Amino acid sequence: MAQSPDNDGDSRPGANRIVLAHGGGGELTRRLLAERIVPKLANDLLAPLADGAVIDPPPGRLCMTTDAFVVQPLEFAGGDIGRLAVCGTVNDLAVMGAKPLALSLALVLEEGLDLDLLDRVMDSVAAAAAEAGVVVATGDTKVVEYHGAGGMTITTAGIGTLPANMPPDAGTIAAGDAVLVTGLLAEHGLAVMTARKGLGIRTTLRSDVAPLSGLVAAMLAAGGQVKFMRDPTRGGLAGLLADLSEQIGRNIEIDEQAVPLSPAARHASELLGLDPLTVANEGKVVAVVAADDAEKVLAACRGRALGKAAAIVGRIGQVSNWPLVELLTAAGGRRIVQRPYGEELPRIC
Amino acid sequence: MAQSPDNDGDSRPGANRIVLAHGGGGELTRRLLAERIVPKLANDLLAPLADGAVIDPPPGRLCMTTDAFVVQPLEFAGGDIGRLAVCGTVNDLAVMGAKPLALSLALVLEEGLDLDLLDRVMDSVAAAAAEAGVVVATGDTKVVEYHGAGGMTITTAGIGTLPANMPPDAGTIAAGDAVLVTGLLAEHGLAVMTARKGLGIRTTLRSDVAPLSGLVAAMLAAGGQVKFMRDPTRGGLAGLLADLSEQIGRNIEIDEQAVPLSPAARHASELLGLDPLTVANEGKVVAVVAADDAEKVLAACRGRALGKAAAIVGRIGQVSNWPLVELLTAAGGRRIVQRPYGEELPRIC
Repeated sequence: MAQSPDNDGDSRPGANRIVLAHGGGGELTRRLLAERIVPKLANDLLAPLADGAVIDPPPGRLCMTTDAFVVQPLEFAGGDIGRLAVCGTVNDLAVMGAKPLALSLALVLEEGLDLDLLDRVMDSVAAAAAEAGVVVATGDTKVVEYHGAGGMTITTAGIGTLPANMPPDAGTIAAGDAVLVTGLLAEHGLAVMTARKGLGIRTTLRSDVAPLSGLVAAMLAAGGQVKFMRDPTRGGLAGLLADLSEQIGRNIEIDEQAVPLSPAARHASELLGLDPLTVANEGKVVAVVAADDAEKVLAACRGRALGKAAAIVGRIGQVSNWPLVELLTAAGGRRIVQRPYGEELPRIC
Repeated sequence: MAQSPDNDGDSRPGANRIVLAHGGGGELTRRLLAERIVPKLANDLLAPLADGAVIDPPPGRLCMTTDAFVVQPLEFAGGDIGRLAVCGTVNDLAVMGAKPLALSLALVLEEGLDLDLLDRVMDSVAAAAAEAGVVVATGDTKVVEYHGAGGMTITTAGIGTLPANMPPDAGTIAAGDAVLVTGLLAEHGLAVMTARKGLGIRTTLRSDVAPLSGLVAAMLAAGGQVKFMRDPTRGGLAGLLADLSEQIGRNIEIDEQAVPLSPAARHASELLGLDPLTVANEGKVVAVVAADDAEKVLAACRGRALGKAAAIVGRIGQVSNWPLVELLTAAGGRRIVQRPYGEELPRIC
């Protein structure tokens, strides 16, 4: 086992840190939940604290999704692991075209975690859930011994109601369809990366982490044919389009100059030697829209705060046995956009 | 950061261990999922590998639940973290009276994890899901750097369909109602504890981890009035009854001699200095049944393999402002059963 946390060796229950006993299922567990976790999430579904929540969904199909969050550091410019955990799962539902109904929240806390930090994260969970219009219906909390592994991980799962015409059908994608992104790319990954100690990078970058249900609803309400939506998290736009071109068996072409990037993101990417197309986002959607409807859906995006910097960045190409994503560079050249091989940014979400 | 895993410093992708690059969202992530995870869970809901699974539930209410699993060691007599993760969530649904419909599975893998171990755990997830008659509909996999924190944690969430008369209503519990347990207690916690290196305890104990949906269905089909069900995991029978007596504001009385305990569990508890009533179980239900129906429900339990050692262990007492759980000891005395204060057995589930 690794060394104990550096709080002067004080891991008595009185000290303001998580101790192993908080996870034992006894009196201290009861108090941790009753005093620091449940009150922040207050809602009718969670209130009975039974082994599960009772949910009365409207008739029809459901969408279910889950995500584990291991981001380091736990707090960064623009958000924290709590906001990330809620938004990540809400956004997976949103891009499937589902309306979020309920979330579950499982915490794995490391001995030594500062309870004030836990309080801030739980406040953030509550605020993000309210912003997304969803409740945390059920949860679990475990405690593990100190190993310097980062303090906490959060896993959320979510269910949402799925309208009859959802999810969008990528099988209908055709040559000429527009590839749209809803705003500035790479902000989340770069904000987390530059928040890490020791890098010494000063930047105005903030994570874009936000719940996208409202933006997606506006896009779908625009009356255009939206054929595909996904949020470009790990692997970024490059990873997403590589997956998509393989899935639909078509080339995809991207205009480098059309990709929305802030000067700060461009600068930080250069400093870190990263391709911003491969960097994670947590508040953006990539959509494929029928060519004739693209401007309409773009306008719907730009009418929302979270979609102001939306842009059409490329188009779907021909069917191919070896489908490729190609970037038309600012200099007038072409280069193949590859799925990143491995880990450019560990623990970014 | 802690030291690297002791695989001769070899963390190249070719080595048979998890490396950080497996979690980056790129090519190695794609291969890990496609080669080692998705094929084992094969089902129609998971197949599209979209951001979420599309589920078509029967009309009516749902139950949703989640659990994080941090057990150490990852494999122990009678099970492993994969079987535990599936059964834990299936059982939370079962004791709510819900029929499991779909699970989500989120893995957090530590750099250095043996891929053969991961394969065994995924086989175990698949086998337990088949045994419980439920599918893993959606999932997520993250990788964190090596800290010697134990190799992996798993978080499952589950949804199930809830019949109109479920969950059981603890509000109807009355004096004289029977407290029933469905089998031998403390087997899971003691099997995990004695599996830990360095303790040097030899025992025949095996974890009782098993999906309880079938047993619960049989209990409910017996035609008796089942007023409460819960699985006595962390905190054991003692923690569960302390919570229940507080919730219903009544005393509860337990007969020590009626509590089903194997000689091996009795022996291991004594060696470890543990009260078996506070030790975790993963394949048992505690139920409160109307007095007149108790024998009927007991017989239904005993008719199933997982309920053969079921017993009525006590009864509900009078309303009290300071409700207590009392143990009638084998020696003819009485002692108060207390909720364990903290952590008797860290990382037991």
